[in-house]
Amino acid sequence: METQSAPQPHVIIVGGGFGGLEAAKKLGGKPVRVTVIDRTNYHLFQPLLYQVATAALSPADIAAPIRGVLGKFDNIEVILGEVQSVDVEAHLVRTLDRSFTYDYLILATGSRHSYFGHEEWEKLAPGLKSLEDAIEIRRRILMAFEFAEKTDDLAARAAAMTFVIIGGGPTGVELAGAIAEIARETLAKDFRNIDPSKARVILVDGGDRLLAAFPEDLSASALRQLEDLRVEVRLRVHADNVTEEGVQVDGNFIPCRVKIWAAGNTSSFVGKTLGVPVDRAGRVIVQDDLTIPGHPEVQVIGDLSEFTSPKTGQPLPGVSPVAIQQGHHAARNILCMINDAKPQRFHYWDKGSMATIGRNKAVADLNFIHFSGFPAWLSWLFIHVIYLVGFRNRIAVLLQWAWAYVTFNKGARLITRNFQAEHRPVA
Amino acid sequence: METQSAPQPHVIIVGGGFGGLEAAKKLGGKPVRVTVIDRTNYHLFQPLLYQVATAALSPADIAAPIRGVLGKFDNIEVILGEVQSVDVEAHLVRTLDRSFTYDYLILATGSRHSYFGHEEWEKLAPGLKSLEDAIEIRRRILMAFEFAEKTDDLAARAAAMTFVIIGGGPTGVELAGAIAEIARETLAKDFRNIDPSKARVILVDGGDRLLAAFPEDLSASALRQLEDLRVEVRLRVHADNVTEEGVQVDGNFIPCRVKIWAAGNTSSFVGKTLGVPVDRAGRVIVQDDLTIPGHPEVQVIGDLSEFTSPKTGQPLPGVSPVAIQQGHHAARNILCMINDAKPQRFHYWDKGSMATIGRNKAVADLNFIHFSGFPAWLSWLFIHVIYLVGFRNRIAVLLQWAWAYVTFNKGARLITRNFQAEHRPVA
Repeated sequence: METQSAPQPHVIIVGGGFGGLEAAKKLGGKPVRVTVIDRTNYHLFQPLLYQVATAALSPADIAAPIRGVLGKFDNIEVILGEVQSVDVEAHLVRTLDRSFTYDYLILATGSRHSYFGHEEWEKLAPGLKSLEDAIEIRRRILMAFEFAEKTDDLAARAAAMTFVIIGGGPTGVELAGAIAEIARETLAKDFRNIDPSKARVILVDGGDRLLAAFPEDLSASALRQLEDLRVEVRLRVHADNVTEEGVQVDGNFIPCRVKIWAAGNTSSFVGKTLGVPVDRAGRVIVQDDLTIPGHPEVQVIGDLSEFTSPKTGQPLPGVSPVAIQQGHHAARNILCMINDAKPQRFHYWDKGSMATIGRNKAVADLNFIHFSGFPAWLSWLFIHVIYLVGFRNRIAVLLQWAWAYVTFNKGARLITRNFQAEHRPVA
Repeated sequence: METQSAPQPHVIIVGGGFGGLEAAKKLGGKPVRVTVIDRTNYHLFQPLLYQVATAALSPADIAAPIRGVLGKFDNIEVILGEVQSVDVEAHLVRTLDRSFTYDYLILATGSRHSYFGHEEWEKLAPGLKSLEDAIEIRRRILMAFEFAEKTDDLAARAAAMTFVIIGGGPTGVELAGAIAEIARETLAKDFRNIDPSKARVILVDGGDRLLAAFPEDLSASALRQLEDLRVEVRLRVHADNVTEEGVQVDGNFIPCRVKIWAAGNTSSFVGKTLGVPVDRAGRVIVQDDLTIPGHPEVQVIGDLSEFTSPKTGQPLPGVSPVAIQQGHHAARNILCMINDAKPQRFHYWDKGSMATIGRNKAVADLNFIHFSGFPAWLSWLFIHVIYLVGFRNRIAVLLQWAWAYVTFNKGARLITRNFQAEHRPVA
């Protein structure tokens, strides 16, 4: 119960992803009071989420409790809550059970997958954004092999051993490569009635090439590397229909038990409650300093924002480096504003992009140089290892990860179900 | 499609716990065809399950895919399936979707917790038998602190910071100690509005002392060690009622959000379908060679069987050493029988028991010597490390475990929910 001469400004950060967490760390120990609100209690290292979905890593390997990460900063409070809306006039953030007032707001609630008006496909073809998604996809992949091993129905067995991934961006490419690898390597000797290495992995995309955001030579390289893993890539085709039994692709029906959606994103609905323009994907159109028109105290960052790059005239992509740099910038803007300075223009430093396809397989675009295969994979590994160490700060986890990744023994291939479905959760 | 002069006898093992897995390993490479049926795809190292429930370890740290463990034995097939009943006359095992015939059967389907006729308490006070149970209990414990941090209602906050464990056997003692430790140590600095170290942990038991199966001096020692952790132990009291709001104990109502049941076991229902006598806890009463009367080809082992020790006249306890030794013996009996010899009498070699209470706190009864505190804890650690290495055969996991255990940084404290509840599972 200490009294202070002047109360410190209150900053609310909604979302503990890459952008929100970076902003919070930057404001730790500064003369502001910070409240971080997230609907989960952990920060998720999303670039490795596909490895949980394909049983290479455990959920806890890629998630860190937000309280643990920020616990050392006495000026930061963490609240587990689901934000429903923001009232920018009243400076109010509403969660399901409580409202909070702010002096400054950083909104970083990210995105979910979009089914382009076919929301009924979500339960048939889940997307990969959350830890729950990853655990469910892992369950479905592993259950498909279990079912194929048990059944005597040859058509059902073939469908169970066919995996269709819809969308050829980085997530689709990574998932296709990883599923091909567990089938061809990890599970190869585990079954008696089926040969998992004969599983079909089909990657469909409506565009002319995979990884449309990458340079063309790397798209071509990604295609070759996937074909080395015997992934069937079908370009310029669209999923017309998704059913329990399979996927209809440009009129051709592919019977398959497991379907995964990696085709589109839509931003969190919270952005739409701000009352400012959003783009087609639901992203809040921000000004060149990340604030929204008329409200310098409100900044929107990461996947939730559309920031048009002055260099390319294009919106920045929804990737973690953008979110991190924007989180850092938003925090700096607030420190400017409390000193009566104006928020600064945001500049994105594009260090390049990478996508991994499998063990020893990847593509890397470092702007000044493109490369693929083993060198690209090594770079990818190195960068993710560095990030992961900084983020979890636990050498032992790193060792386990390296071990699991280098060997083909995937220990995390557990099929867990929901806690008995009829149980009503306490919380 | 090879033809054999004489078909090999077919052994079905139901259950991939300690007993079933040991029997399967023993029969690997022997002149029998083995089918292992389990309803999960992994073997669970149950003695460390409470560590998943208290966020010290991840599910994958204590579970190994059964296919992975048995994959090297060409004569063993693994089936994911839920056994519904056994027809001992027809030599038939029925699962939900298929039936299997056997020449020899080893039944090892274990036990669940028993609510002594109050099954409606299960959703309010879950027990700890499966990985799903552990993840749910972990979620409830962590959510209770999150709720306490958010609420302004002082009574609700106090209830959220009160944890009641019903049952003072090894599981109850381990859980009480571990919850006290995460509250007092791990979470101590993570919150702003509450002091987790002030959480109340209450352990209730109807008996005169904790750990009734241990010698009296060790019960007294366990009590002292729990009191060091500020666990409130209430003996000779019974839970009369369990509600959403709390637990009624001998007429006194204890308001608490999280209740955990560690009070009783009942055997898997599969035992009752054999048509032979079962005891009060549903355990199949086996003969001195582990077979059931009139059916030497059927053996029942582990928690599902009641085997009366000729030394003490008492049934053997439901612990992993009993299951492992019985699994070994059952496999040997089958190898005898296929050589036209009779099944042999089973002898249990009791190496003693241990229970851990917390870091540096445990009790150990090695029959010839009793000890407690740090030496007991070191022995407990050593034995579990040895088992875990043998079972997972992965040094990296061991390192992580040792690291997580020695430091107080519990990285696995994730609150995961069910994959969106409306999703219909594919399988």
